[in-house]
Amino acid sequence: MARWEPGARERMVLAAADLFTEQGYDATTVAEIAERAGLTERTFFRHFTDKREVLFAGSSVLVDLLAERVASAPPTAAPIDAVTAALQAAGAVLQERGAWAQRRQQVITANAELRERELIKMTLLVTTMADALRARGVTDPAASLTAEAGVAAFRVAFEHWVAQPTKKNLPRLIADSMKQLRAVTAGL
Amino acid sequence: MARWEPGARERMVLAAADLFTEQGYDATTVAEIAERAGLTERTFFRHFTDKREVLFAGSSVLVDLLAERVASAPPTAAPIDAVTAALQAAGAVLQERGAWAQRRQQVITANAELRERELIKMTLLVTTMADALRARGVTDPAASLTAEAGVAAFRVAFEHWVAQPTKKNLPRLIADSMKQLRAVTAGL
Repeated sequence: MARWEPGARERMVLAAADLFTEQGYDATTVAEIAERAGLTERTFFRHFTDKREVLFAGSSVLVDLLAERVASAPPTAAPIDAVTAALQAAGAVLQERGAWAQRRQQVITANAELRERELIKMTLLVTTMADALRARGVTDPAASLTAEAGVAAFRVAFEHWVAQPTKKNLPRLIADSMKQLRAVTAGL
Repeated sequence: MARWEPGARERMVLAAADLFTEQGYDATTVAEIAERAGLTERTFFRHFTDKREVLFAGSSVLVDLLAERVASAPPTAAPIDAVTAALQAAGAVLQERGAWAQRRQQVITANAELRERELIKMTLLVTTMADALRARGVTDPAASLTAEAGVAAFRVAFEHWVAQPTKKNLPRLIADSMKQLRAVTAGL
């Protein structure tokens, strides 16, 4: 039976962040990540399938959260408000991850394959929220457009936040970004 | 000196579309594309670096067109109107390509690597228009948000159009999509 290693997952995530930053993503092996975390490779593979998954494992939490929040928004909420609130909840999770989110982004920005993976993740956020809106009875193209608009506002807010994640409040930046998106699309 | 083959490029694009549809993208070789077009491999490589480029070579035309149209919009045009007009001009080019655009999309949808490449292209459309807006004096985050909003509206319109490219008018769908995006972001 596998021994339970308290905080093993977090230690490996932080060790990976250190190594990716120090010596690059491509040059870092799973063995090095495990060693830095003071754990075995076997423990690594109980938590992650490969080193890329260390960077993207947290994404499924966000996807599930977005689906759940859009679904549970008040029945009277306008679709754009349901989407904005869901993205703010995801932003609060990222805010807790703080400096890790920033380092993760630096690793991704430096690697073409990881940037592609990140783009695919963004598309998954759009389709997840569009599906959740359709389940609330929102028809197309409004469901797709609302989800696209939300992720557009989120992306711009996130890029602003990630430069100074401990000083800026991501949920608030997301709300501001949505207001600005509303203003620019209105031609103001 | 290379002989000039009239219409060689178009013949290869159409031959590739046939073969990708008939037998799949992965199973199709450059030799087969050239043969189907009645040309040599050497002629193929005068026009394209590989078979993937047959699908994406037309994208640079769109990118250049977007940059040029945003730059040349009337000085009084609101950023969102400059972006919408530029995307409509790109839509008119796609409308001319008609059934080819549809078959291209079917090939891309069926292949994970090509879908990723298409996502990267969409990101390039956003950054191209955001840069062109900044050159017009639009500040951030408005420049980024306007470009994101434009591509969001474009993407939804394109997905609707590509199902019936000879029956629907893409530039009009783009204008409609932008109106709908404005309505959903306003919470209407």
